[in-house]
Amino acid sequence: MRESELSAGETPTRSEFALIERIIMRLGESAARDILVPPGDDSAVWVPGGGAVVATIDAMTEGTHWRPHLSSMTDVGWRAVATSVSDLAAMGATPEVLLVAAVLGPAVTLNDMDAFIDGMAEACRAHNVHVAGGDIVRGRATAFSITALGSARLDRAQRAIVMRRDAAHPGDAVAVSGTPGAAGAGFRALESHLTGLPADEVIAALLRPHARIDLGFNAVNLGIPCAIDISDGLVQDVRHIAERSAVGIEIDLDALPINQSAIALFGLDTARDLALAAGDDYELILTGRQQIIEALEGVTIIGRVLHQHPGEVVVRQRDGAPYPLPTGWDQLRAWPLAQH
Amino acid sequence: MRESELSAGETPTRSEFALIERIIMRLGESAARDILVPPGDDSAVWVPGGGAVVATIDAMTEGTHWRPHLSSMTDVGWRAVATSVSDLAAMGATPEVLLVAAVLGPAVTLNDMDAFIDGMAEACRAHNVHVAGGDIVRGRATAFSITALGSARLDRAQRAIVMRRDAAHPGDAVAVSGTPGAAGAGFRALESHLTGLPADEVIAALLRPHARIDLGFNAVNLGIPCAIDISDGLVQDVRHIAERSAVGIEIDLDALPINQSAIALFGLDTARDLALAAGDDYELILTGRQQIIEALEGVTIIGRVLHQHPGEVVVRQRDGAPYPLPTGWDQLRAWPLAQH
Repeated sequence: MRESELSAGETPTRSEFALIERIIMRLGESAARDILVPPGDDSAVWVPGGGAVVATIDAMTEGTHWRPHLSSMTDVGWRAVATSVSDLAAMGATPEVLLVAAVLGPAVTLNDMDAFIDGMAEACRAHNVHVAGGDIVRGRATAFSITALGSARLDRAQRAIVMRRDAAHPGDAVAVSGTPGAAGAGFRALESHLTGLPADEVIAALLRPHARIDLGFNAVNLGIPCAIDISDGLVQDVRHIAERSAVGIEIDLDALPINQSAIALFGLDTARDLALAAGDDYELILTGRQQIIEALEGVTIIGRVLHQHPGEVVVRQRDGAPYPLPTGWDQLRAWPLAQH
Repeated sequence: MRESELSAGETPTRSEFALIERIIMRLGESAARDILVPPGDDSAVWVPGGGAVVATIDAMTEGTHWRPHLSSMTDVGWRAVATSVSDLAAMGATPEVLLVAAVLGPAVTLNDMDAFIDGMAEACRAHNVHVAGGDIVRGRATAFSITALGSARLDRAQRAIVMRRDAAHPGDAVAVSGTPGAAGAGFRALESHLTGLPADEVIAALLRPHARIDLGFNAVNLGIPCAIDISDGLVQDVRHIAERSAVGIEIDLDALPINQSAIALFGLDTARDLALAAGDDYELILTGRQQIIEALEGVTIIGRVLHQHPGEVVVRQRDGAPYPLPTGWDQLRAWPLAQH
């Protein structure tokens, strides 16, 4: 449309409206079209698929959540969508639309914006969500905020059927999807400039996570009451469940599904510590009755929920002794991509 | 709760979780409690009051949207809520919940955060909305993003009953609420360090705008098809309607309801130009059949929608000659509080 007004590499000082048109064009099929009022009006309007609306907001900022020399803006765009949608997956909700707010720092070029939008569009296609609105402003530092909106069904008592952090019960099994630690290994591989397989695989796990939407949907439909996604680190996120549910949780060290590429790159001990503490995996932790958990594909039972020691998490070695959690925990948690 | 961990004036480097608990406490009744999953889980869950969900996101950043020496963080918090909710008012939607993302720059203190939250809580009470979730991260510059969510009814064809920018029809009357230009006069008064009445009144219009929720609700229920809120400036926002609706719009200069305090402070000519171009008023512009508009309280008919000159806006003087739009237009549009 007005693409000619904006030339690649130029800092986007032109009209916000021309920039928005450019973004909508570039999003292509990832811009919401089937909603009642399309992008460009004061607000987006749509009819949610279920009776309840499920919504989450995340902020990410250059330097804290990504480092320009370690990830491309395309990766940043993908990751922004996937990590935001992951919060809906953790509830068992069905993601529908995104709203995106962008604060563009002084150095942002149109190429950067295009790359970010391309990454978002790819992740939107992969996760079956659409961008329904947004806002762009200039500021002193670049930051993005994404609101992901989805829906959940209501039960007969008009309660939303979702998985919550505060719904773990003593006697429940604790399970995790995939192989945590891959993203943490990916960060080490990136920092060490490792390339080729298996480094590329764990780097992709870090930069291009996939939200476990189908798993969350299947779990909530089977009656799993409690889940969380792994953003802060497996033990830390299990602790959120333990605190909110006022239960103790015991993890069996030997039961952890350790990422094979992480082992190949850094050895079993480091890979295990990354699985416990590194975060950024966006796998799901679920708690529920063992026979229901066993009906889910792609998850591994790693522990159990207890009456004792509410709010606490212990990782047990084969002999029953507590496994000392990785040192450098706070440092791990302060990784630039981890905080939200 | 854990308030003792955090002391006033300290930079909030403590746990995000302690900070979130502090914020929820401080929000008081403005934290959503009656929703299905309260703040603290992965996502907020609620049942919208109407069949359609209406959602808008806005970003605001220090230096662009507020200047620390001109407005307190309490004012910034109020304004963030009111301007966000105003986008729902412009659709005739009923605001319900907010999601807030905060990027805290290095200099942000707990006092700043408390003041921001207090302003948000006040504005939430004034606009009958509740904070249902959020995210807090550290960054190089302070920015906030608010998503406002509300609902609208569906007609029998399952279309949302909302006012849109693209629904103005030739023959419609054009009306505006309140007395635009007050916020623009407020900015001048602030910059000139004016105090006392009538300066305080226009400064309040700038720093503490009220979204016209009731007016929007009444208008949509009476069948008004088209509205927008004044953020960029009256003529600029009327132009958005003209462009989207592919109509011409004629404004009668003498019909404009000029703010009396702005006239008292800066004279009629300046006050009129501020009314036309300054923005930040968050009054509503509505177009619809004249007899319906006349049934609305607090609005003034200022012009009409035409077939001719689609996309254009002309302001007519008494003799029919076009009124030259204020010079310094771009400068006015670049005012620090105007961009969104």
